[in-house]
Amino acid sequence: MTDKNNIYNEEYLSGKSLDFPELPHIEGLQASSLSANLYNDINRDDLTLFTLPQNSIFSAVYTTSKVCSECIKWNNNQKSKNIRALFVNTKNANTLTGKQGYSSISQLADELSKKLKFKKNEILFSSTGVIGEKFPLDTIKNKIQELTENLGSMNKLKWIKSARAIMTTDTTPKMTYSQLKINKQIYSISGIAKGSGMVFPNMGTMLGFIFTDIKISQKLLSNALKENLNSTFNAISVDGDTSTNDMVIVFSTQKAKNKIIDKTNSKEFIDFKKNLHEVMLNLSKQIVMDGEGAKKFIEINVNNAKSENSAKKIAFAIANSQLVKTAIAGEDPNWGRILMAAGKSGENINVNKINLKIGNYIIFSSGIINKNYNEENVKKYMKNKFLNIEISIGTGKKSFKAYTCDLTHDYISINADYRN
Amino acid sequence: MTDKNNIYNEEYLSGKSLDFPELPHIEGLQASSLSANLYNDINRDDLTLFTLPQNSIFSAVYTTSKVCSECIKWNNNQKSKNIRALFVNTKNANTLTGKQGYSSISQLADELSKKLKFKKNEILFSSTGVIGEKFPLDTIKNKIQELTENLGSMNKLKWIKSARAIMTTDTTPKMTYSQLKINKQIYSISGIAKGSGMVFPNMGTMLGFIFTDIKISQKLLSNALKENLNSTFNAISVDGDTSTNDMVIVFSTQKAKNKIIDKTNSKEFIDFKKNLHEVMLNLSKQIVMDGEGAKKFIEINVNNAKSENSAKKIAFAIANSQLVKTAIAGEDPNWGRILMAAGKSGENINVNKINLKIGNYIIFSSGIINKNYNEENVKKYMKNKFLNIEISIGTGKKSFKAYTCDLTHDYISINADYRN
Repeated sequence: MTDKNNIYNEEYLSGKSLDFPELPHIEGLQASSLSANLYNDINRDDLTLFTLPQNSIFSAVYTTSKVCSECIKWNNNQKSKNIRALFVNTKNANTLTGKQGYSSISQLADELSKKLKFKKNEILFSSTGVIGEKFPLDTIKNKIQELTENLGSMNKLKWIKSARAIMTTDTTPKMTYSQLKINKQIYSISGIAKGSGMVFPNMGTMLGFIFTDIKISQKLLSNALKENLNSTFNAISVDGDTSTNDMVIVFSTQKAKNKIIDKTNSKEFIDFKKNLHEVMLNLSKQIVMDGEGAKKFIEINVNNAKSENSAKKIAFAIANSQLVKTAIAGEDPNWGRILMAAGKSGENINVNKINLKIGNYIIFSSGIINKNYNEENVKKYMKNKFLNIEISIGTGKKSFKAYTCDLTHDYISINADYRN
Repeated sequence: MTDKNNIYNEEYLSGKSLDFPELPHIEGLQASSLSANLYNDINRDDLTLFTLPQNSIFSAVYTTSKVCSECIKWNNNQKSKNIRALFVNTKNANTLTGKQGYSSISQLADELSKKLKFKKNEILFSSTGVIGEKFPLDTIKNKIQELTENLGSMNKLKWIKSARAIMTTDTTPKMTYSQLKINKQIYSISGIAKGSGMVFPNMGTMLGFIFTDIKISQKLLSNALKENLNSTFNAISVDGDTSTNDMVIVFSTQKAKNKIIDKTNSKEFIDFKKNLHEVMLNLSKQIVMDGEGAKKFIEINVNNAKSENSAKKIAFAIANSQLVKTAIAGEDPNWGRILMAAGKSGENINVNKINLKIGNYIIFSSGIINKNYNEENVKKYMKNKFLNIEISIGTGKKSFKAYTCDLTHDYISINADYRN
């Protein structure tokens, strides 16, 4: 790993740093973004096309919601293991749009297939925006010619432009990368994401697109994505609601010169997985930090649980508790609410075994409030932008870390008052 | 049933009616309330004692949270089927108070037992208030003499005073009753409740106390409570958080002159259960209507699901969705969010079989938005204080009705900004 890799830090996540990371070139990857004026704003890009060379592979995970976008249905129906293009539109989620939505995708795929000489089933789609509105097929189709003409290899500008073009009400583009050495050569994994914005009603999608040119087998690419998912994109929550359009895809152009990574136990795969994890975790954290109305980033660390799943349930019971999140917005060390939320998780909890820390302050242990608990100190700590809550369950050895943000007046304003 | 019984109506629930219902006398029941100055407000009652005659019975349900109050531990430890007293304090939840909390109860029980000549294990306790603060044993103990001296039979004033004395940040006392005829005689079930207030951090308890003098067997009293629970107190949600102190208890003094109700299939039991249901549902609705910051009362009706449990999961996925609740606060007919929430419930949902109605407006059916959908009409409907959402799943014949309120700026203010 190089120095540049250390992108996740408080300054960056808090938006104080305006320097976006310079994402490295990925051999074979091309991109193009432009405005189809979907937002009535010709200066705002709303369409993005990524293309990949022959023999590129991918691995994708989609929302588990039973109400899912037509684009996810399309992607699931394409049986190709190879990938040549990813087409992303914002403003319209293409969800609950029925046949009009699905056939629109098919027509866009026809058009792209004609222009680029790709097979239709090697083109994936991603949409984010309003649910239930008619999909603006013609407006988008009219822009395909221009989109394909503007395709070009990745550079700093292309990356930033793409990361911006997939935003809805995100306040900042989300980008990161990680590099690893294989046989003294440096290889790269670059990723962009969007999430948590909600300008228009019914919008709230998390998208993550990660690209590499590292040669890796299909099986190991999928393994790496899936094994990393639980502790990254599936470890975050802004409001406990699951989008109908969530997707994370990792692509490999296979154009790097490394010997193909195809052994689970190889050092190269272990490194790849670690670096991919870093990219996924960083993007996930950027999404939380840009959560609707969020003023604070909260890490909830559940330790010594009887299973990882049990730790996760407790972590999310806390991360999704309105009472915990409003207390944090108010910078109020309401530790009773944290234990209340743990208690309602459905997991077996013995109050006498629990140990609760906020920051470095021990609040509660052995069934009672810590004798040295000083609320003034913890109140001061709560004024920080980055907060850590640690709870040891004392029934086992497993742990889970969840990431969330506070629940503020701005969240209500964004989601309730928008049309007023 | 009498005319007076029709207490649940929009005017009453919306607080426009200032007339509290005149709860009927329950033979054998006595009560006393006073202020121990726990709120630094000598005009605010914070202690309540109910006493019941010999051979009174009860049935109780408590919070399922693993983090529960010492008072619930006490109640569960008393093996007596008979009951002589219920002691309620506000301001302090006696939760996460460890041995000090439990031994305080035991000392209060000693004192009450001495003064009233009751067995210790025939006295139940209920607390609501701040979690984790030392239980104010001495302050409370000093008031027991006065409490016992003021005991008296129930009348209009006693009922209102009791219902007020168990409030925390409730804005209104919650009271209702139901009457049934057995052999041409009228018999009564009277209930009070509190819930959803949160003046002090960590407070948020739902309590329901229901009294009757109708002679009924222990077994059928328990049956009636438990069978009614799912569609009443367990069908409401203000913010999806479960209190550590929730409890609902139904008491019978057994002092009425009816022939004991002890047959499951008897008309008397069916009537009793129906009337108890009415009391429980009415109190539950009053709690939702007084939810923190709530401006709107929302009934979510899930029909044609494959099981009641499945319908319930979908109903609560909607009732607990921050995005749905903020949209409703904004009077915005964000129907996509309702289906998004149904989709994330984990239940098997086929979008093509779903039928969604807001009020009398059909919004979505057969996989697409209703052709006659007119957003302006639905927007007008959303301005109502009482809203109905109906969703037919189309996979079976079971249904569930959940009750919730909107999520407003006032909720955030109550829970975040209190100490600032």
